[in-house]
Amino acid sequence: MSSHDLSLSRRIRQTPFTNKAEEHGVSGFTVVNRMLLPKAFKKSIEEDYWHLNSNVQIWDVSCQRQVQITGPDAEKLVQLMTPRSIKNMKVGKCLYVPLIDENAGMINDPVLLKIENNKFWISIADSDVLLWTKGVAISYNFKVNIIEPEVYPLAVQGPKSEELMVSIFGEKIRSIKFFNFGLFNFLEKKQVIARSGYSKQDGFEIYFEGYEAGEKLWDTIWKAGKKFNISAGCPNLIDRIEAGLMSYGNDFTIENNPYECNLGKYLNETSHNFIGKSALEKIKIDNINKQMRGIIFDENPCPTCSHPFPVYSENNEKIGQVTSAIYSPRIKKNIGLSMISKKYWNKGNKLIIETPEGKRRNGVITSLPFPE
Amino acid sequence: MSSHDLSLSRRIRQTPFTNKAEEHGVSGFTVVNRMLLPKAFKKSIEEDYWHLNSNVQIWDVSCQRQVQITGPDAEKLVQLMTPRSIKNMKVGKCLYVPLIDENAGMINDPVLLKIENNKFWISIADSDVLLWTKGVAISYNFKVNIIEPEVYPLAVQGPKSEELMVSIFGEKIRSIKFFNFGLFNFLEKKQVIARSGYSKQDGFEIYFEGYEAGEKLWDTIWKAGKKFNISAGCPNLIDRIEAGLMSYGNDFTIENNPYECNLGKYLNETSHNFIGKSALEKIKIDNINKQMRGIIFDENPCPTCSHPFPVYSENNEKIGQVTSAIYSPRIKKNIGLSMISKKYWNKGNKLIIETPEGKRRNGVITSLPFPE
Repeated sequence: MSSHDLSLSRRIRQTPFTNKAEEHGVSGFTVVNRMLLPKAFKKSIEEDYWHLNSNVQIWDVSCQRQVQITGPDAEKLVQLMTPRSIKNMKVGKCLYVPLIDENAGMINDPVLLKIENNKFWISIADSDVLLWTKGVAISYNFKVNIIEPEVYPLAVQGPKSEELMVSIFGEKIRSIKFFNFGLFNFLEKKQVIARSGYSKQDGFEIYFEGYEAGEKLWDTIWKAGKKFNISAGCPNLIDRIEAGLMSYGNDFTIENNPYECNLGKYLNETSHNFIGKSALEKIKIDNINKQMRGIIFDENPCPTCSHPFPVYSENNEKIGQVTSAIYSPRIKKNIGLSMISKKYWNKGNKLIIETPEGKRRNGVITSLPFPE
Repeated sequence: MSSHDLSLSRRIRQTPFTNKAEEHGVSGFTVVNRMLLPKAFKKSIEEDYWHLNSNVQIWDVSCQRQVQITGPDAEKLVQLMTPRSIKNMKVGKCLYVPLIDENAGMINDPVLLKIENNKFWISIADSDVLLWTKGVAISYNFKVNIIEPEVYPLAVQGPKSEELMVSIFGEKIRSIKFFNFGLFNFLEKKQVIARSGYSKQDGFEIYFEGYEAGEKLWDTIWKAGKKFNISAGCPNLIDRIEAGLMSYGNDFTIENNPYECNLGKYLNETSHNFIGKSALEKIKIDNINKQMRGIIFDENPCPTCSHPFPVYSENNEKIGQVTSAIYSPRIKKNIGLSMISKKYWNKGNKLIIETPEGKRRNGVITSLPFPE
């Protein structure tokens, strides 16, 4: 299917940075959490990839909405929602927490931020965790308040991001470790800045509170970024797939459990009570029959993966589907993500990928993230 | 903001009818419930409006996803989720049911279908009612099964829709009353067909179960529709606003309660227990200070309302914002929907609407639906 015009309305929300992305030549959007996410700028994805690998970029990722949980039972509620233990989580920490339903199906794979002792932000991928959280909280009678706050993440990504951020917020930026955050002043207001981001480069995410001053923040970063060769960008598909970063709704859905998504290492199944515990225990005993894998496959750059590409074994059994794919100019082959049947999921196994032009391409299972 | 290319992916789901909509010249989409909804075809919205008013159209409204609730506690759960009583609801009935949260904020305004005694479909507007329902069910320990079934609504709308549907499904179609449904065979499978739709014309919605045979259904309707001058369309903005049909996310959100949305007549606050009951009772006593109104306003056709238009009183007080608007070729003025402050909401009151070109236009409050 070809691409088409996106009709805009209040329902598809703009961000504090949409006008700035426009100014810098955004040419395509997608919709995440009913909010615009820039998907293409003037540069090709490949040019953009090389730029991201050696410079610094500014990305409007406001669609990473926050679900804010405050109140005396905030921690209790958050802990009930994830099989990952948050017992030792400290204020200032970010934690990747799979959220699952009663069948151990993935609800979302957000980053959890502990803002204060009784205040958490769940920074979500594309599903309404706000409604899920509110629904769960209702009958447990938890003393919590659950809202979507006016927080709009803006990402600064790339190897020069530390120098750029230091030039604006000072030397203290250097002390933020990966998946930690600090508080920094901007226009006399404290802002959460984390070392994190949806790329395999170094980078930061500013969880910008407020809406009105958004363009001022963008302009400040842009101005300071000029000497670091900054450009306006967005999550880069080549970089994301190479890093093995999955996309909820694309690479996995509520039909998948965390083991299938390679998230077993984030589960503390025995440490506490949580939704989906018995289902998860059952899966651990029965085992899974498919799991996320990296695939490298041949020939000229594959078409856009807007529909999954079927994956076959050498004896023509359907064994998976590639849900994210692109040509990697570094590996000089196509790369993709696919759940693969157990019998075929070992590294080095050969398989066949069918792309929409009707081509059957030879592929091989690789490790995730993709080899350097 | 100008419109832009929509980047497609598995996350933004296609429907069984997307290829058919493409074949018939769809030129723009929006995203509802993470699924494509056609928004524009070759014809202008005005041409489309006149066609809809005197012929028949086929619309891909698969994005009206179903939340299916089955099991011995299905009715109990549904009743807990809405202030509208479903006590006397019979199998075969559709019911417009506001869903509210614990603060009486609108979660969604779906149509509820009672498929069997222990089987309901909630046919939703744009918010994840699936996750809300699952969350609520978990904590109450209800014996229910909640899924999003493989059901893809296809609408047949317009004054000639009954004749067209009779020519395919037989005379029994005529006996379906407004907001009721019957079961009809298509390719030896029973399908739910309701007399309903997101227009003020007569029409039907086929809750098509399955995916594969979708194109066959479209082709059958298309072929039979030729003698009724059928065309491929989508919810028409002129028709929708004239009918006073609101759009969740555009005209109201979780920040609004049902009274503000003119939905008071659908509430049976005292008949049963439901989420948000005490909040709703408090609102009834304290009263509301704004409510949805129709506005007719002057001059040449207004621009697309992708951002709300501010509304002012004659003494320049901000009293609302138009969230849906378009020029009506029948009324020969612009028409819009806006929540309006109590002091100014009476029919006939004059007000000023500011449109993005910087124009201040004279307007007046009217009844909803807009006068014939």
